[in-house]
Amino acid sequence: MASPEIEALTQALARLPGLGPRSARRAVLHLLKRRDSALGPLLEALARVNERLVTCGLCGNVDTANPCAVCSDARRDPRLLCVVEEVADLWALDRSRLFPGRFHVLGGRLSALEGVRPEDLSIDRLLARIGGGGIDEVVLAMNATLEGQTTAHYLAERLETLPVRVTQLAHGLPVGGELDYLDEGTLAQALRARRPVS
Amino acid sequence: MASPEIEALTQALARLPGLGPRSARRAVLHLLKRRDSALGPLLEALARVNERLVTCGLCGNVDTANPCAVCSDARRDPRLLCVVEEVADLWALDRSRLFPGRFHVLGGRLSALEGVRPEDLSIDRLLARIGGGGIDEVVLAMNATLEGQTTAHYLAERLETLPVRVTQLAHGLPVGGELDYLDEGTLAQALRARRPVS
Repeated sequence: MASPEIEALTQALARLPGLGPRSARRAVLHLLKRRDSALGPLLEALARVNERLVTCGLCGNVDTANPCAVCSDARRDPRLLCVVEEVADLWALDRSRLFPGRFHVLGGRLSALEGVRPEDLSIDRLLARIGGGGIDEVVLAMNATLEGQTTAHYLAERLETLPVRVTQLAHGLPVGGELDYLDEGTLAQALRARRPVS
Repeated sequence: MASPEIEALTQALARLPGLGPRSARRAVLHLLKRRDSALGPLLEALARVNERLVTCGLCGNVDTANPCAVCSDARRDPRLLCVVEEVADLWALDRSRLFPGRFHVLGGRLSALEGVRPEDLSIDRLLARIGGGGIDEVVLAMNATLEGQTTAHYLAERLETLPVRVTQLAHGLPVGGELDYLDEGTLAQALRARRPVS
């Protein structure tokens, strides 16, 4: 009975991760009940993003400028390059303000299951960027998942012949982690990578 | 680090029911990665709904026309009026095509907890509609929740003096319901409303 316009919006929302058909319908009703306070702002925010945001041609970040604010920030060390899977990872690392260098977004991770091959990621662009010179260290900051680590190994191999130091994020106990509650994989990693007490 | 445009969109999405800040961020990244297949269609669907949909001045339904398609459907029995809490309830009842009359959307339910009082619902408009004559039966189709039933009782009292038959949806075992799995409240209702075997 709902009009085609409502059906179309419900379907568009239902395709978002985290929302299914039922919750999308609830979201649509929420929007319809709050035209000025919810539907209007969402529409405007979406239109702005659609209008203004571009993908950075250098690193793959999403920003209003190309090159993005991170790439064009002169205070960042151009000799340090951190490779991440997704834009979200770049933001997460950047929120912490702990990494003083620049980034490279792969746009995903190798996955046999999802059919993601090396040519589907921005690996060629990464190699060209490193080949261009001026980069001393490449930090592989993939997720600590099977697919993330597969991707990191693959990249490490591809980078072997290039004159850069390749590092990766440390694996081990997360801050506040209690041994009793951690999975075996994390414990094994922490044990394997144990260091002398300084 | 994400641009203000992205933050604004994340916040607008995070206010939808079923999405929190984290899932809203994931949804935004999903949209940014799929400009043409996800962001574009969602933007268009939202703009269409915003542009074309109006609230029916008679029943409170949301449709492209005012009066809505249900109210202006001449095949529907004008003597039957079904009162529901939300537009979603109207759609649910209408999807089944079992109710041949018209509807009235209250716009919510009485709730001490959420501070929803009678004057916050379209009760006056309902009374005026019934007072206008031509309606024989008012079906109270509130949810079988505490607040829904409170609202139904309140409405039944307000309608007492009007020359209409007031009925409500039957409560009891849902189709396919197994006694062993049903809550006590439903069982009590089913037992209390037991009928002679015909």
